Amino acid sequence: MNIKEYMADVGARARASATVIAATQSLQKNAALLAIASSLDERRDELVSANKKDMAQGISDGLAAALLDRLCLDDQAIDQMIVGLSQVAKLPDPCGEITDLSYRPSGIQVGKMRVPLGVVGIIYESRPNVTIDAASLCLKSGNAAILRGGKEALNSNKAISACIETGLKKVGLPKDIIQVISTADRAAVGELITMNEFVDVIVPRGGKGLIERIVNQATVSVIKHLDGICHVYIDDGADLIKAFDIAINSKTHRYGVCNAMETLLIASSVAPKILSRLVEAYIEKGVELRGCERTLALVDMIAATDEDWGTEYLAPILSIRIVDDMNSAIDHIARFSSGHTEAIVTQDISRARQFMSRVDSSSVIVNASTRFADGFEYGLGAEIGISTDKIHARGPVGLEGLTSQKWVVFGDGHIRE
Amino acid sequence: MNIKEYMADVGARARASATVIAATQSLQKNAALLAIASSLDERRDELVSANKKDMAQGISDGLAAALLDRLCLDDQAIDQMIVGLSQVAKLPDPCGEITDLSYRPSGIQVGKMRVPLGVVGIIYESRPNVTIDAASLCLKSGNAAILRGGKEALNSNKAISACIETGLKKVGLPKDIIQVISTADRAAVGELITMNEFVDVIVPRGGKGLIERIVNQATVSVIKHLDGICHVYIDDGADLIKAFDIAINSKTHRYGVCNAMETLLIASSVAPKILSRLVEAYIEKGVELRGCERTLALVDMIAATDEDWGTEYLAPILSIRIVDDMNSAIDHIARFSSGHTEAIVTQDISRARQFMSRVDSSSVIVNASTRFADGFEYGLGAEIGISTDKIHARGPVGLEGLTSQKWVVFGDGHIRE
Repeated sequence: MNIKEYMADVGARARASATVIAATQSLQKNAALLAIASSLDERRDELVSANKKDMAQGISDGLAAALLDRLCLDDQAIDQMIVGLSQVAKLPDPCGEITDLSYRPSGIQVGKMRVPLGVVGIIYESRPNVTIDAASLCLKSGNAAILRGGKEALNSNKAISACIETGLKKVGLPKDIIQVISTADRAAVGELITMNEFVDVIVPRGGKGLIERIVNQATVSVIKHLDGICHVYIDDGADLIKAFDIAINSKTHRYGVCNAMETLLIASSVAPKILSRLVEAYIEKGVELRGCERTLALVDMIAATDEDWGTEYLAPILSIRIVDDMNSAIDHIARFSSGHTEAIVTQDISRARQFMSRVDSSSVIVNASTRFADGFEYGLGAEIGISTDKIHARGPVGLEGLTSQKWVVFGDGHIRE
Repeated sequence: MNIKEYMADVGARARASATVIAATQSLQKNAALLAIASSLDERRDELVSANKKDMAQGISDGLAAALLDRLCLDDQAIDQMIVGLSQVAKLPDPCGEITDLSYRPSGIQVGKMRVPLGVVGIIYESRPNVTIDAASLCLKSGNAAILRGGKEALNSNKAISACIETGLKKVGLPKDIIQVISTADRAAVGELITMNEFVDVIVPRGGKGLIERIVNQATVSVIKHLDGICHVYIDDGADLIKAFDIAINSKTHRYGVCNAMETLLIASSVAPKILSRLVEAYIEKGVELRGCERTLALVDMIAATDEDWGTEYLAPILSIRIVDDMNSAIDHIARFSSGHTEAIVTQDISRARQFMSRVDSSSVIVNASTRFADGFEYGLGAEIGISTDKIHARGPVGLEGLTSQKWVVFGDGHIRE
């Protein structure tokens, strides 16, 4: 297979079908989503047996248990994909919404209409359910999609792709709206991220290595989700009961997620009042603690190194630092945060305002757990990822992040004088 | 000079000063803009004499008259820069605005706060006034800027840069907020567009060649303004008086601008009623006409080639095509438009709605001149360019296009269950 030709063909088909899906009404898009769900339901056996091939290959290739876990597509995972499709079908259609329509001094009426981006390229790793997540969000937002899953999931993704094709056909939409790349050749990714004439934006989902590689090589715009090194700062004006709950929830609600706290910052004046209770609770939950020197002076634990402050553990490990005050906390965050999510716990309204303004992360939270930084919690209905970027989309990216706005102008024979 | 080291130093300074300007209040930013204006006013002689060096060099290098014209910095051009600065000072500050703040079922309150992008890199060609335009918009929107003007304008830009520095110092802001690259070495651009750690977005302003080169090589996100191949379509439901005015104004109001019409499309049923009057008016204004075969059958003129449909003339030249109906017009636009601005003239509300929805350009206009596609006409107050891109900013880009939004969350001890 000539990868360059293959990808150019995929790109041209995507571009052509993007015009069709952009002009498709909500009812038909929703029907397509439900038809894909039915097709998944009807072809469970095919999906599971295709996945078994991938799993067997994965085991013989010696894939890590965590990767095999993500790769697995059982009946429950298929149920979740079906539920996801019907949830996206229920979301309001973002396309066509006109906002800010107002008259200008010249007499023309100017506003903005929300429109699809065109062609979205999504590159992801082993989870085959991402194929359905990505397909459903792109379809609902009126975009064509080119999906490139991990090579470990090639058979699973082909089987899912067949269901998508069936669903699209059933409602009379061209199959090229959602294309799944059928080659494991890495060169396909290199083509996808540089086909500026065919692709409007790339959304990579996966580990830091994958994303950095894509950002460095892409000429197409990238909505990227790098790591989540999230902080909770317990201010000296904090309500210590709220602080305790938020610090525990932010770390221990789930460990392997990007909005989990990785470093706890505590104002030195309150550290003696709360640290030992926190440490006790963390240890009870099996969290390994690594502290700065001032922390160690209060409670015995492993000493944190400079590397700890810049590490996304994604695991039951927490680094703790005692800081002089909010300014030191903000300095620490500016230096070590990945710009994902930071929280302050304080009853002091002036410091809450300052923290809110000065911390440059995609979510800044006052008196709540970092775990709320999530598309569902924010009311987006679904998310394609969490952008740690500032261009186009920031934080949880839902349907709106997959759209753009064009200017619309209404006149009545107006000309410029 | 080691360009790599020089640019890394510029980048690091920009990143550091971005934190300062992001936290600077409106009053101080406005004071800085006015202080820069005063400094330009006080140092007119230095500016003019620096510009004379560039002009002399330009003449001896054999620069085209149009380029020399753009390069020239006389008292009138300085006046315009001063007026521009005070206009930007009067615009509302986009930063800090919180929108969409609402309660979620969990009890947290979620909204979005408008924030600066960080560091903006602007690459432009001969016009030295762009240095002030770009500096003022970046400063007002709370961004640090790295400005790279054309090598023809190096002395002029250095003199302007000195005025900016004086203005920033006068109000106590660090000079690194606005840095003007002081080397003509092209390698500086190559560094600027790949320093992802220091630069958040690149805005290239200039010819198509410059912009394509930057898009192909940049790893930093680019807000790009490619060419403006704009269309007016006169529908068979058009009011022919409005159609006449709009077709004449869109082409002849100004020729060298990106929102001028380059191709006129006319529905075949109305062509016999309006074409000869239009042709007469265009010829009177000195516009060269190039027509499709059906146009030539009605009025004698030069035959248009396929190349004409894809050309941005930026000159008193117009191509004319007679089409069957609106669908053929939309097909022509989809194939040849650069996605900048298209207008329909029609009294038929159904076709107006369809044209509005189906045409995928940054501005879509009903019954008004394409010349309205402009930041000032749209009420943005000022513009850094017109984006033909769909990512982040589309159409005229003002202060808002130089900002992002972060999510803000207010709780009262809320944790995720």
